[in-house]
Amino acid sequence: MNAPGSVVRTAPASSPEQVFDWLDEEAAKRAEAGLVRRLRPRTADVGELDLAGNDYLGLARDKRVAGATAAAALRWGAGSTGSRLVTGSTELHAELEHELARFTGAQAALVFSSGFTANLGAVTALSGAESAIVTDKYIHASLIEGCRLSRAEVAAVAHADPAAVRHALATRRRNRALMVTDSVFSVDGDLAPLPELAAACREQGAALLVDDAHGIGVLGEGGRGAVHEAGLADAPDVVTTITLSKALGAQGGAVLGPRRVIRHLVDTARSFIFDTGLAPGSAAAALTALGVLRAEPELATTVREAAGNLAERLGAAGFVVGAPAAAVVSVRAPTPEDAVGWAARCAELGVRVGCFRPPSVPDGISRLRLTARADLTESDLDKAVGVITETAPERARG
Amino acid sequence: MNAPGSVVRTAPASSPEQVFDWLDEEAAKRAEAGLVRRLRPRTADVGELDLAGNDYLGLARDKRVAGATAAAALRWGAGSTGSRLVTGSTELHAELEHELARFTGAQAALVFSSGFTANLGAVTALSGAESAIVTDKYIHASLIEGCRLSRAEVAAVAHADPAAVRHALATRRRNRALMVTDSVFSVDGDLAPLPELAAACREQGAALLVDDAHGIGVLGEGGRGAVHEAGLADAPDVVTTITLSKALGAQGGAVLGPRRVIRHLVDTARSFIFDTGLAPGSAAAALTALGVLRAEPELATTVREAAGNLAERLGAAGFVVGAPAAAVVSVRAPTPEDAVGWAARCAELGVRVGCFRPPSVPDGISRLRLTARADLTESDLDKAVGVITETAPERARG
Repeated sequence: MNAPGSVVRTAPASSPEQVFDWLDEEAAKRAEAGLVRRLRPRTADVGELDLAGNDYLGLARDKRVAGATAAAALRWGAGSTGSRLVTGSTELHAELEHELARFTGAQAALVFSSGFTANLGAVTALSGAESAIVTDKYIHASLIEGCRLSRAEVAAVAHADPAAVRHALATRRRNRALMVTDSVFSVDGDLAPLPELAAACREQGAALLVDDAHGIGVLGEGGRGAVHEAGLADAPDVVTTITLSKALGAQGGAVLGPRRVIRHLVDTARSFIFDTGLAPGSAAAALTALGVLRAEPELATTVREAAGNLAERLGAAGFVVGAPAAAVVSVRAPTPEDAVGWAARCAELGVRVGCFRPPSVPDGISRLRLTARADLTESDLDKAVGVITETAPERARG
Repeated sequence: MNAPGSVVRTAPASSPEQVFDWLDEEAAKRAEAGLVRRLRPRTADVGELDLAGNDYLGLARDKRVAGATAAAALRWGAGSTGSRLVTGSTELHAELEHELARFTGAQAALVFSSGFTANLGAVTALSGAESAIVTDKYIHASLIEGCRLSRAEVAAVAHADPAAVRHALATRRRNRALMVTDSVFSVDGDLAPLPELAAACREQGAALLVDDAHGIGVLGEGGRGAVHEAGLADAPDVVTTITLSKALGAQGGAVLGPRRVIRHLVDTARSFIFDTGLAPGSAAAALTALGVLRAEPELATTVREAAGNLAERLGAAGFVVGAPAAAVVSVRAPTPEDAVGWAARCAELGVRVGCFRPPSVPDGISRLRLTARADLTESDLDKAVGVITETAPERARG
């Protein structure tokens, strides 16, 4: 049936049951490597201390924010009923986009159903076969997927290294170029050198795309984000992506940038055009969260201070802790098994912490990932530090 | 700076303002081709007759469904606060997955934040560099994106053609294989020959992935979907993806299939692992919609009859109308400009219809896309047929 020499097939599976046998083989390999993941559904009653979620300002359960979801669902319906270009754009979506742009200082904004699809849309629509993309090697998985979809020439360079970015841009083979980075890196919580990256991009005629998922609501004046803090919010050559599901307590994502970029996305971003619009209740929650943040700008300072305290106290206890740029605090664990055991023991004692291990950590180093919240109390911090110290594996102190 | 012969670059943009000048050039080309899209935010008051959305059973605004969103937001919060593997899985998500599997007859289910990300996750996790993928050439954009991400050998074959699928599978060069198709094709509303496709896959040792986004809630016994109707819901070699945002009136997507497939997705699907979990309110809405559908199985029959009536009457009026397999009715327009003008005139007279034109139509043929709902009345249908006929471009009658 095949041309001679082209056949690498063995006999087809002989029964329908065998078609997915390879999944069991892969599962066995993961089990052997200690990399099986399990879903652990949580209850509505928050009995434990949550240092794992991304609800940085404590707004997901804020009565105003959750109440906005409830009111919007009753008024607009549970779902948006269609793609944004057909029936899925309500006045709520338009108002949210207007407010997001106004709050962050961008010319315009476009709301997606998730940060993941916002990143896919921004990367693919702003590059293409005629483009080069240079990325920090630790960017978020959704940006990597965008690069893979882009058909661009892609180079991933050293972490947080403007010189490496400059060199990669200077030696690119395509005329158009896009540099892609996270602002706050989600695993270690460190900050990209945005002003230096922007300078390198300008010198080399490249656009800059910044994923500010962990910066919005936490960094910058009143939580306006890392891009605003770097003075790049209204730059003609900078595009920002954010999520509505972390500091803003809702669901969804958005792209912020020059008006012509947003228009281009409406016409060409496949993850925008071919996806159902964000549910009205989620749009309303994000909109209300922005209002809370405007009224209480100290929330952003509070969460940063909580993260700083947590890191300082864990560092003083002897752990290898990064200096948190925003709300994410990373604590190194000796091995993946140590990290899993440590996190499990914390959970048993009522403290929920994140556990990051290969392949979700770009540098191969397993760690506990703690996230601060603006509503953590002194006694929450005491409990967290106490439990993490008490349950630490022997070799965790650096 | 570049190796000789490798440089195809011109001088870099000389100012930050110029970096995105190429977007304006592309916008000008789209404008010339009549392909500019515009967002038209709608109001909360449904003054017009909506034949454009995908709320097939009228459940998005159903008080029970919207009320479930409201109650869940107040109890669980506006957002899920994290990825499904960290804090984003609530008992609501687990219950929804259990009920989706029970309702459709699948072994297990996994909820994603959208149908788009569900398709990305299913296609990529069930294929890979060692796999061949054979697709119907008219599959949804999100499945195409999944194929592009998959690193598999991909062959797109003739529409709804089991013989072409069999041939492509038989001549593949990789051992593992996945056939990917929509059940109901979203543009024309026709049905894939699922039993014949499943037979071809089995003969050739391939798995079958069916996107039942437009079938769930509409086709099969009590709305159990096209895969259930074809007797394939519990097949060991068939995987189904659905959306929660069409007939179920909510937001989100899901993958249904053998338990080992679902476990594999939890461990490996990047659009699952690296995305924030679906908002509790959306999960609750979909769960409640399933309950409504169980209690009122006639909803599925009603929407199919409405679609049939609409198609029959428009056909009798002389238009080129496909025989709808589910709720989507497609009416051909002579040109993209005709389609845009026709849809605009319908909107002016209070009937909102979809307008599909290149590049969103796989065959290059522009059309009005009408969607039936279970809650359309006789007088709605009279109005729809009257307005569509009255506003038709001259050459629209076939």
